[in-house]
Amino acid sequence: MLLTMSTLFVRTLRDDPADAEVPSHRLLARAGYIRRAAPGGFTWLPLGWRVLRNVERIVREEMDAMGAQEVHFPALLPREPYEATGRWTEYGDNIFRLKDRKGADFLLGPTHEEMFTLLVKDLYGSYKDLPLSLYQIQTKYRDEARPRAGLFRTREFVMKDSYSFDVDDAGQERSYTAHREAYTRIFDRLGLDYVIVSAMSGAMGGSRSEEFLTPTPIGEDTFVRSAGGYAANVEAVTTVVPDPIPLEGLPAAHVEDTPDTPTIDTLVAVAVERFPDAGYTAASTLKNVVVQLRHPDGTAEPLVIGLPGDREVDAKRLEAVVHPAEVEPFTDFAAHPALVKGYIGPQALGSDSASGIRYLVDPRVVPGTRWITGANEPGKHVFDLTAGRDFTWDGTIEAAEVRAGDPAPDGSGPLELARGVEMGHVFALGRKFAEALDLKVLDENGKLVTVTMGSYGVGVSRAVAAIAESTHDELGLVWPRAVAPADVHVVATGKDAAVFEAARALSEELVAAGLTVLYDDRPKVSPGVKFKDAELLGMPTIVTVGRGLVDGVLELRDRATGEREEIPVDGAAAAVLAAVRG
Amino acid sequence: MLLTMSTLFVRTLRDDPADAEVPSHRLLARAGYIRRAAPGGFTWLPLGWRVLRNVERIVREEMDAMGAQEVHFPALLPREPYEATGRWTEYGDNIFRLKDRKGADFLLGPTHEEMFTLLVKDLYGSYKDLPLSLYQIQTKYRDEARPRAGLFRTREFVMKDSYSFDVDDAGQERSYTAHREAYTRIFDRLGLDYVIVSAMSGAMGGSRSEEFLTPTPIGEDTFVRSAGGYAANVEAVTTVVPDPIPLEGLPAAHVEDTPDTPTIDTLVAVAVERFPDAGYTAASTLKNVVVQLRHPDGTAEPLVIGLPGDREVDAKRLEAVVHPAEVEPFTDFAAHPALVKGYIGPQALGSDSASGIRYLVDPRVVPGTRWITGANEPGKHVFDLTAGRDFTWDGTIEAAEVRAGDPAPDGSGPLELARGVEMGHVFALGRKFAEALDLKVLDENGKLVTVTMGSYGVGVSRAVAAIAESTHDELGLVWPRAVAPADVHVVATGKDAAVFEAARALSEELVAAGLTVLYDDRPKVSPGVKFKDAELLGMPTIVTVGRGLVDGVLELRDRATGEREEIPVDGAAAAVLAAVRG
Repeated sequence: MLLTMSTLFVRTLRDDPADAEVPSHRLLARAGYIRRAAPGGFTWLPLGWRVLRNVERIVREEMDAMGAQEVHFPALLPREPYEATGRWTEYGDNIFRLKDRKGADFLLGPTHEEMFTLLVKDLYGSYKDLPLSLYQIQTKYRDEARPRAGLFRTREFVMKDSYSFDVDDAGQERSYTAHREAYTRIFDRLGLDYVIVSAMSGAMGGSRSEEFLTPTPIGEDTFVRSAGGYAANVEAVTTVVPDPIPLEGLPAAHVEDTPDTPTIDTLVAVAVERFPDAGYTAASTLKNVVVQLRHPDGTAEPLVIGLPGDREVDAKRLEAVVHPAEVEPFTDFAAHPALVKGYIGPQALGSDSASGIRYLVDPRVVPGTRWITGANEPGKHVFDLTAGRDFTWDGTIEAAEVRAGDPAPDGSGPLELARGVEMGHVFALGRKFAEALDLKVLDENGKLVTVTMGSYGVGVSRAVAAIAESTHDELGLVWPRAVAPADVHVVATGKDAAVFEAARALSEELVAAGLTVLYDDRPKVSPGVKFKDAELLGMPTIVTVGRGLVDGVLELRDRATGEREEIPVDGAAAAVLAAVRG
Repeated sequence: MLLTMSTLFVRTLRDDPADAEVPSHRLLARAGYIRRAAPGGFTWLPLGWRVLRNVERIVREEMDAMGAQEVHFPALLPREPYEATGRWTEYGDNIFRLKDRKGADFLLGPTHEEMFTLLVKDLYGSYKDLPLSLYQIQTKYRDEARPRAGLFRTREFVMKDSYSFDVDDAGQERSYTAHREAYTRIFDRLGLDYVIVSAMSGAMGGSRSEEFLTPTPIGEDTFVRSAGGYAANVEAVTTVVPDPIPLEGLPAAHVEDTPDTPTIDTLVAVAVERFPDAGYTAASTLKNVVVQLRHPDGTAEPLVIGLPGDREVDAKRLEAVVHPAEVEPFTDFAAHPALVKGYIGPQALGSDSASGIRYLVDPRVVPGTRWITGANEPGKHVFDLTAGRDFTWDGTIEAAEVRAGDPAPDGSGPLELARGVEMGHVFALGRKFAEALDLKVLDENGKLVTVTMGSYGVGVSRAVAAIAESTHDELGLVWPRAVAPADVHVVATGKDAAVFEAARALSEELVAAGLTVLYDDRPKVSPGVKFKDAELLGMPTIVTVGRGLVDGVLELRDRATGEREEIPVDGAAAAVLAAVRG
């Protein structure tokens, strides 16, 4: 296909759009690939659309190759199936809801677990029909509170979602692995760097879950990895639990007056002053943080989290573990006199205590650990309060922040923290959706069994941003060959008719050979502007036809490496083809 | 690509779905191509999706070939641009509206004139940038009151919409013609019969408009055509206006008592009885029909339409000519004493009359025509009331029904009526949208001129239904090669392992040659069921590998013609390829 700059619907801009926060957004907008159309909504211009369709094609080829079958659902979906699984409510403000002219409720699908489950239930009934993997490449909708970073977080986006259906856990494991492998091939072909991290199941419930994150400083997700190969989403990191300490011979707890110790720092200062040899640090204290949980049925409950004083509660980790309950600030101290603000101690807490307030502790709180903590009296703390002897708890909770240097749970060394963007997600859903929507098949013995499912997603429009983000340089976009909107950018410079004739002839020869060529045929644009545009637009190979033509040479340039070479006009097409096809 | 029936996500059904009104819906559902997902919303199963994508590809190729450039807009659109053109209100209940979490208004795009206009305004500013044609292939939304006929009228559907931008009328004419020609190529390639009919501009305003209708008895649109080549949408038919008759010497009007003549038939009976030689028929009477117009600003107005008594008002024609006003029943006779129910006569009507009520007449009412009509008194009619002498009117209106046998307006003979489905629409919008949204460019003289636009649509998902509707037979679907989900259906019958081996080998050989093959490899399904499924699924070429194999022959069948021939196993692939490639 031949694209000519004189007619192509594109305008390159000198200035960054005011609302562009990240390089990919800046460059895609400046190079005329996308244009903002609505809050969190972008229009794909011809070049951008070509990249998106290339990404789509790669995703489709790999899904087909693994045996998944493509279908396509409406985006406008009825309320009932989402009501049956509870997600109509759980999604809260995050989905778009609307009514039709008759007042019936609909939503714009953010993801389609319910619909796929019902479709399979509708058509299939036997273990012989399984395994089955279905997918679609579709426009999805989420009412994001804060659309950001251009194509990275929009309210309308293109996603490949697939769903696997198996009769048993072993089958589900195979389907999961097949998707995981297909995803590695997809991201490899897209030229995207990625880390596969363990992930919490989050809103979905289910058993096993991994995310494909592309490391980037502009990423919204924090993940951890160790030199030994461990990688996880921060929400999924589990704490290395210390061994319990025998209780015998441990010192007795003792209450101390600790006026004016409103913070951990001031408390530690007093403790160190009073007991200089004890080696107290913030990690010696146990702070008890009160939050309020709002359950899906609307009821609220106070929850106290006990954790070492040198760590904060990580809001995302907390949200992930308490889901589907939501976390709210706790303010109603008046209704709970057992909670002495600033001096809350474990001895007043727990389901079995007089207060009845649920008390969960960080996994580092094991029997025999001794703590400085609140004494449930204003101005007093208790020292050497010993876990398992002086206080108990209702369970542990993974809510404390993860820090660089923490040990990896699998013993593979200290963790480092990095930022990334989620590009893909593989998820063993288990039987949650099948149970809610009654998807059963007959097994080999003629018995009805509930199907086990997986759900899997790739951010297709997001991948365009991620590729731009990870490959661009200071001059502009740098597309990998697999997704570039054109294989070659032919630039004709000067005013000499012979130059334009040669450039067009070369372009047409390359098109005839099967390439897509972007030919800059603009007659009155200066060479400088044309070169700048070529760098900004980012085709992988740039051929300049200009002054050298009188000497029988063209310039061939590799956009990514910047390497240039002169090639003879005679046989130029073959040389360009060789460069393109590697 | 190889599709195997044993794993393909498809279930053929013996029975028609209860809600299927038309053959295409019945067969697409029974053959497992589509499945109802919501009111007016369908899921595309793997075979249906393949057909849709083939249609899409053909549309895309022809749009690219005519020089249109593909872009892609969000479907979720902000209210403001639609407010600026008045369509936010005009669409009434026919669009889906929703609010985001902040309460901002959005709609789901039914068509994108506003957004394309704004995009071009955003990027372009000179006559040198034009002409420009942009298109998208996109999911559209309309809140249809009565989704019907399967894929023919849904609330979520795939459409190719394009928009042309020109600096002057001559350019717009060229863009219009280019689209019109591309559409003929598209429908030719899809194998769809079509008639190009003149169409009213309807809700859009604008100057020239044609529809591509596929004739089918299940069509919602009535159109007319003459043997001499005239074709028009019923809304667009203009009446052949008779010559006026000199007023001199015409008889004087005379009022007659006509009790008990509540209908045209009873009135004509009385007239014939009283004046047996006058040759009175229903066409001699002038009936005056009152309706109420509701204007977009909310105000209401009575309107009287005078038309020959042998014709009814055609609701669609009336709606088209009064748009954007809406037609409501008129009931408030009490407020308008000039309107004597059942005996309304022209002498009480007209903007200049005492009543001030607007009076429009059928174009057949020309000066000198004489009429039997109401005398504005209960039980009385006036005879020989002569147009242009005894009464006047405010203008003419094309609201009377069109009947078979009426003359074509271009003199090409009598009209016949037929039913069809709109598959495409080409539309010279003119400057309405450009003016509302201020799209101007500098012309050659440096003067700002308003751009003239066209809008053009092809129903992509509807085309799948139309093809199925026009090609099916009593056994099932019959796909044209251009859109068939597979080129060949290979059926292996019996239990002989050699049969399955040969069938698979042939299938794989055909796939290697570039075909898509659907191979019925199901081991325990009877030949009868397999043959029935092959007829129902409708691949253009069916190859049966069965009993004949021991004699070295296969059967090759053409689904459309039913022709069968035996072909030798040796060289079978070449014979099949020859059949497929014609």
